[in-house]
Amino acid sequence: MNGGRGHYPPSIARLVDEFAKLPGVGRRTAERLAFHCLASPREEAMGLARAIRDARNNLRACSRCFHVAEGELCQVCSDPGRDRELICVMELPRDAIALEKAGVYRGLYHILQGRLSPSEGTGPGDLRIGELMERLAAAAGEGRPAAEVILATRPTAEGDATAEYLAGELRAGFPGLRVTRLARGLASGTEFEAAAPSSLIFAFQGRRE
Amino acid sequence: MNGGRGHYPPSIARLVDEFAKLPGVGRRTAERLAFHCLASPREEAMGLARAIRDARNNLRACSRCFHVAEGELCQVCSDPGRDRELICVMELPRDAIALEKAGVYRGLYHILQGRLSPSEGTGPGDLRIGELMERLAAAAGEGRPAAEVILATRPTAEGDATAEYLAGELRAGFPGLRVTRLARGLASGTEFEAAAPSSLIFAFQGRRE
Repeated sequence: MNGGRGHYPPSIARLVDEFAKLPGVGRRTAERLAFHCLASPREEAMGLARAIRDARNNLRACSRCFHVAEGELCQVCSDPGRDRELICVMELPRDAIALEKAGVYRGLYHILQGRLSPSEGTGPGDLRIGELMERLAAAAGEGRPAAEVILATRPTAEGDATAEYLAGELRAGFPGLRVTRLARGLASGTEFEAAAPSSLIFAFQGRRE
Repeated sequence: MNGGRGHYPPSIARLVDEFAKLPGVGRRTAERLAFHCLASPREEAMGLARAIRDARNNLRACSRCFHVAEGELCQVCSDPGRDRELICVMELPRDAIALEKAGVYRGLYHILQGRLSPSEGTGPGDLRIGELMERLAAAAGEGRPAAEVILATRPTAEGDATAEYLAGELRAGFPGLRVTRLARGLASGTEFEAAAPSSLIFAFQGRRE
């Protein structure tokens, strides 16, 4: 329904439209959020606008692992205390952040930026798989090879297929490398973000070859 | 809970904080919205930021009725087709917009910008009551007095008290003026925004002296 858009001044109509594009935000919620922005202290509304703009302008992909970063390297890659022999491969930055919150992992990451998805037309060349191979080869060439790659794609059909594909590539390219997958303590289809930290810990500790 | 804020780059942490200030948005929803802003096309995220900024910069109170306006006068006051003998007094712009959507009212508005609230320390001097009196006096002085003022404050204790106070002031200042209140077809405590248009129509048509 149009909902009487013409009754808004154009600035409000546009603000409602923009809020309604957010996931899980319907028309009525979008109206409530828009009016909140108009009624709240100016600094609060402008703070949200600025935070969105700054996040989009400041954030980029870490040049090593493709996690979100504000500089050349992400917070994990910049941390000298992390175990450089372990690389945890995940689909998206939010997955890595969920794992960081559980506090169980002290190695590095490699963020694929997605998963293999025939239905969405995403193939191996669309993910950061080539960069993972180059990174592993470079580390080996420098005499400090990775000891283990943990395939922590999501516990879904596409995540599993992605892990299976990666396992084949890694075994072929790096015969001595330990390649593991997180234990299926996670219910199929669960999002990392929605999992309790304790489930993540179980899944992590029970990871298998 | 802190929820592991330190695991975010500062730009994301700030964006999550800002989203979490919105009404009805908890920490987890704020995280989802923040990541959506990062993952969505740049123009979509920037569109929201711009819409918030523009709405705050462009919108002001109508100089006549204090409804939201993009120029000197709001859309209703600027419309030559509205009945200038009728003034509907409401608490907030969103109330007037809800009524506009119902399409039942063709007069003008006067937005109080709140309601009498002893608990929040809001007295008559904090509302646009003086401006309403001046506006009625000016119209009478120009020989085209208002015929009716509809007190359409919200159907709550504070809204009722505000309407009662206004009724006394209006009767004392403008003895010939018809002063009405919306029929209580609305359930007590209902927000105008949440009411079905048909309830608004019943309430409007059944308004009483």
